Amino acid sequence: MKIVILLFDNFTALDVVGPYDVLNKLPNSEIYLVGLEKKEYKDIYGLKILAAYSIDEISQADILLVPGGGGIDNLLKNKKITDWVRDIDNTTKWTVSVCSGSLLLAQAGLLNGKNCTTHWMRKDQLRNYNNVTIKDERYVQDGNIITSAGVSAGIDMAIYLISLLAGEQTAKMIQLAIEYDPKPPFDCGSPDKMPKEIIDRMKNKK
Amino acid sequence: MKIVILLFDNFTALDVVGPYDVLNKLPNSEIYLVGLEKKEYKDIYGLKILAAYSIDEISQADILLVPGGGGIDNLLKNKKITDWVRDIDNTTKWTVSVCSGSLLLAQAGLLNGKNCTTHWMRKDQLRNYNNVTIKDERYVQDGNIITSAGVSAGIDMAIYLISLLAGEQTAKMIQLAIEYDPKPPFDCGSPDKMPKEIIDRMKNKK
Repeated sequence: MKIVILLFDNFTALDVVGPYDVLNKLPNSEIYLVGLEKKEYKDIYGLKILAAYSIDEISQADILLVPGGGGIDNLLKNKKITDWVRDIDNTTKWTVSVCSGSLLLAQAGLLNGKNCTTHWMRKDQLRNYNNVTIKDERYVQDGNIITSAGVSAGIDMAIYLISLLAGEQTAKMIQLAIEYDPKPPFDCGSPDKMPKEIIDRMKNKK
Repeated sequence: MKIVILLFDNFTALDVVGPYDVLNKLPNSEIYLVGLEKKEYKDIYGLKILAAYSIDEISQADILLVPGGGGIDNLLKNKKITDWVRDIDNTTKWTVSVCSGSLLLAQAGLLNGKNCTTHWMRKDQLRNYNNVTIKDERYVQDGNIITSAGVSAGIDMAIYLISLLAGEQTAKMIQLAIEYDPKPPFDCGSPDKMPKEIIDRMKNKK
């Protein structure tokens, strides 16, 4: 199973590493970290991760994963990237995104006519694309595409993806291996659970 | 706020990056990635992350975070590392661990007489240390030490830590920023939620 994860400057590290630690546990799979160029990319706080392959070297994938982060906006204008995403999607079993990564799928035309989701702060932006139906769910599967909500939702999505690829038993064992029995300290991880003034302040600060 | 995260070969990437993405959002904080040497360390699957500082360059921290992973066992025998952990703990406000990182705290003597936890597969090993009381909780605070359960528990612990450092409101906003409203596909993330035969198989495979 060839799993390709796209890197770019100003990605969100947890969007990548959450699914990375889950998907690496899938038997007979290999993860390829890929960038526009073969080089190190910095996350939003400066952590460097190497894309060991350029997109020119990757023409096929079983799974394509696009993470999010502030840098996604720069990719949306890059025709070489959007063409590559569309071409790779033609070869994949599953094309998936975490957080604002769904914007790149939309820009490549892959969410046309589809149900999907994204980080709550990016929903207005995603709504600008034609014929896209946004759902308030942790992850949304439509056809061969699975989009997830913000950052940490990539972990839930990746475990679900394992269940599709290798069955429920394997997915459950991997969930247990990362001891994913979450007990967040607060019940506030979704915008409907926080006061509107906080939501507005966070949207304006972005 | 000086936050020091220890890297070593065969660390678990999510143990580092979960708390990293949470703690980086704390105002006026800086994260220092530190290793026995100043060099790149590989996670359990080969992902390289740079320790920009050697432990010789770091003699103080407000927060020390020790992640886990298969490589923790090699550190336990390294007196230079255990001495450094003990010395740094003398300067910290909080010393915390994720997953099997608690073993290094125990080896440094910091869990003597303390309540603590670790990855469920590591509890027998942690129990070998003198005067250590293991709790079946997501994270355990005792004095200035907070230990967490396996891998993904570092996210819950880091949000809780933010609430101690900067108050509940800031912690809630950071939890919302990473949209941490978990909905795992299965209810199986803790060993008491899976059949004993699976637990035994996973323990034997380790």
